[in-house]
Amino acid sequence: MTDPALATEYRLTTEEGLKRFIARVLEKVGVAAPDAHVVADVLAASDLRGIESHGVARLESYYVSRIKSGKMEAKPDVTVRRETPTSIVLDAGNGLGHPVSKRAMLAVIEKAKERGAAFGAVRNSNHYGIAGYYAMLALEHDMIGIASTNTVRYGAPTFGKGLMLGTNPLAFAIPAGKEPAFVLDFATTTVPRGKLEVYQRKEKPLNPGWAIDAEGHPTTSAPEALKGALLPLGGFGIDNGGHKGYGLGLLVDIICGVLSGGAFGNELPLPNQPAEPGKISHFFGAFRVDGFRDVTDFKRDMDEELRAFKSSEHAPGAERVYVAGEIEHEKTLAHRRDGIPVHAKVWNGLEKMAGELGLPFDIERT
Amino acid sequence: MTDPALATEYRLTTEEGLKRFIARVLEKVGVAAPDAHVVADVLAASDLRGIESHGVARLESYYVSRIKSGKMEAKPDVTVRRETPTSIVLDAGNGLGHPVSKRAMLAVIEKAKERGAAFGAVRNSNHYGIAGYYAMLALEHDMIGIASTNTVRYGAPTFGKGLMLGTNPLAFAIPAGKEPAFVLDFATTTVPRGKLEVYQRKEKPLNPGWAIDAEGHPTTSAPEALKGALLPLGGFGIDNGGHKGYGLGLLVDIICGVLSGGAFGNELPLPNQPAEPGKISHFFGAFRVDGFRDVTDFKRDMDEELRAFKSSEHAPGAERVYVAGEIEHEKTLAHRRDGIPVHAKVWNGLEKMAGELGLPFDIERT
Repeated sequence: MTDPALATEYRLTTEEGLKRFIARVLEKVGVAAPDAHVVADVLAASDLRGIESHGVARLESYYVSRIKSGKMEAKPDVTVRRETPTSIVLDAGNGLGHPVSKRAMLAVIEKAKERGAAFGAVRNSNHYGIAGYYAMLALEHDMIGIASTNTVRYGAPTFGKGLMLGTNPLAFAIPAGKEPAFVLDFATTTVPRGKLEVYQRKEKPLNPGWAIDAEGHPTTSAPEALKGALLPLGGFGIDNGGHKGYGLGLLVDIICGVLSGGAFGNELPLPNQPAEPGKISHFFGAFRVDGFRDVTDFKRDMDEELRAFKSSEHAPGAERVYVAGEIEHEKTLAHRRDGIPVHAKVWNGLEKMAGELGLPFDIERT
Repeated sequence: MTDPALATEYRLTTEEGLKRFIARVLEKVGVAAPDAHVVADVLAASDLRGIESHGVARLESYYVSRIKSGKMEAKPDVTVRRETPTSIVLDAGNGLGHPVSKRAMLAVIEKAKERGAAFGAVRNSNHYGIAGYYAMLALEHDMIGIASTNTVRYGAPTFGKGLMLGTNPLAFAIPAGKEPAFVLDFATTTVPRGKLEVYQRKEKPLNPGWAIDAEGHPTTSAPEALKGALLPLGGFGIDNGGHKGYGLGLLVDIICGVLSGGAFGNELPLPNQPAEPGKISHFFGAFRVDGFRDVTDFKRDMDEELRAFKSSEHAPGAERVYVAGEIEHEKTLAHRRDGIPVHAKVWNGLEKMAGELGLPFDIERT
C-alpha cells in the first residue's frame, strides 16, 4: 500500500490470518468451529471487498459481546420450519446470522439446481454481515442470487417521523463471463446511520435528504439527525423519489420479517436499546440462467453489457463509469495482493479483546 | 367528482366504456380481438389507478400510430423460445407488449402453482403499460408477483453523461388480508421524462437531482435537461445514493434485455428517434406464499404490518403515512364509483383518432 494515510492509520493482515483470528475468537466464546469459520469467511469477505463497516470491525460489538452477555446463543438450536422442493424456512434459534444464512442460501441453490428456481427465509436470527455474500454464493452455479435482511430500526417512512424501518439492504448477484460479476448490494436508506456518527465527530453538516430530526423536519445537523431518523433512498417527501426507497425498505421488511414468520415492523429492535434476541429475519433466492438462455450466450452478452456501461462517456470531473460490484472486486484483488487494511483503532480493539479472552493476539501482519 | 378543476379539465367515462373504446380502436387497426381486450384492460387499469400517463393517453402515440406506420405488428408471430417447469421465454414478434406479457405472467403463475416458484421473460417486444398490472396478477393466487421492463433510453449512469438506461420500472405485488395488497411499482430514475416536459411547459425550475444537461452537469433547467439525461433514483453522483438507483436500473436492463436474449444497453432505442421494432424486453416472476407460511397467518401479519405503517406518526405538514399501492387502490375505488377522469386534451385526441379511423366516438360518459 503506497497511500501514506493507509500506512499510518491502517494495519495490514492476510485473508487467512484474519479468518483464523475471527474463528478462534468465536470458538473461544462457545461457537462451534464450523459456524465460527462461516462467520470468519463472511466478515473477511466484507473487509476484502473494502466494506470495512461490516467486517472484523464489528466482531466484538455485534457478535462476541452479545454472545458473552447471553443476548445471542453461541450454539443455537436451528430448526427447519417449512420446506418444499422450491422453498425453505429456518428458525435460527437466536444464533449468529451468518451460519444459518449460508445454510439457507446453499439449500436454496440446491433446490434451484433441481427445480430451476427457489427461495428461502430465516427468522429468529441476528445480524448476518453483508447481504452480497449470500447472493454471490449463486454465481459459481450460473444462477442469479438474491439476498436481503431487515435490521434494527433507524429510518422513517415517507411522510412519517417514527423509527419504523431498518437500513434493510437488498443484494443481487448476476454472473458474467470475463468481466467480474454484477453485484448490487445496497441499503434502502439514503445513508447508513454510521455516516451520521462520522459527520457528528467531524462536526460537518449532513447532505439534505439524509435524515430528519425528532420532530420530523429535514435536518442537516448530525446531532439532531441522530435523535431523529434516516430517510429512505430518494430523500425527504416524494419529490426526489423518497417513496420509492421507502417502498423498497418496506418490501424488505415484508419478504424477510412477515414471510419468514419472524419479527417485523414495530417488533424490530430500536437503536441504542439493549439487544433483543432473534428479532432479525433474512430472505434468499436463486434461479438458473439456463432457464432463459444458454449460459455461454448469456455470459458473452453480460460482458458486452457491463463493458458498454464501463466505457460509456463520463461526466465532467468523473474518471469513468463503474458497474455494481466492480470497485469491490478490484479491492478484493488488491487486498489479496497487498494485504487487508484494518483501521488502527479496530486493530487495537481486537488486541484488547484477544487479551480479555485470554487468546494470543497473533493475527498475521503482512 | 366535486373538484371544480376536474369538472372543467376532465371528462368522465366508465371502466367498461373505456375498455370497449380502446379494444374497438385496436381491432380497427388490425389487432386480434383477444389481444385488443388485454391492452384495453391494462390501459384502463392504469387510468383506474390514477396513473394517467400510462393509460388511454398513450393509445394513439404509443400503440395505434406505431401499428399504422408498420413499426409494430398488429398480429405478431409470438413464439416460445425456451420453457422449463419453472421458466418461460417468449419472443413477442414485435407485437404489442401487453398480450404477450399477460401470457408470460400467467404461464409463470401456472408454473409457480405446480412448482412453487417460476420466472419468465419476453423479448422483441414493445411498451407494455404499467408493470404493476402484471405483478398484481399473482395476488389472487396467494403469490408474490414481480414484473419489470426496460424502456427507451432516457437516463445516464452515475458518473456518466450518455443516454444508457431507460426509466426501467420494477414492480412487486404482495397479497394482504383485509388491507389492500402491497403494490410497489416505480421507475428507477428519479422522475419520468414526462415530468421534465411538464416543467418546461410551465417554465418551472427542476429539482436538483432530477437531471443533467448534455455536458453531464447537474441542471435545474428543463430545456437543458431535455437535451441531457435523467438521473437515477438517488440523484447526481453517489452522495445521496444515485449509484443505488443506477444499479437498480442496470439490474432491470440485465434481467429483461440480457436474460431474455433481447436488446440491451446501447441497442435500446433513443428518445425522439423513429420507433425501432421489438427492442423492448420484460421480466416476470411469481412464488407461493405457502412455501413459507400458512397463507392465513401471512395475510393476518401483512394486515398488521401495513396498519403499523399507516398508523405511524406523520411528519409536520403531512396528513398521514401511506403504504405502496394504497393511493392507487383508493383511486380505483373512487373511479369505479364516480367515473374515470380523462383529461380534456386526451379526450379530444381520442375523438379525433376515432374520426380518422372511421369509428363512432361513442365512449361512454358518466
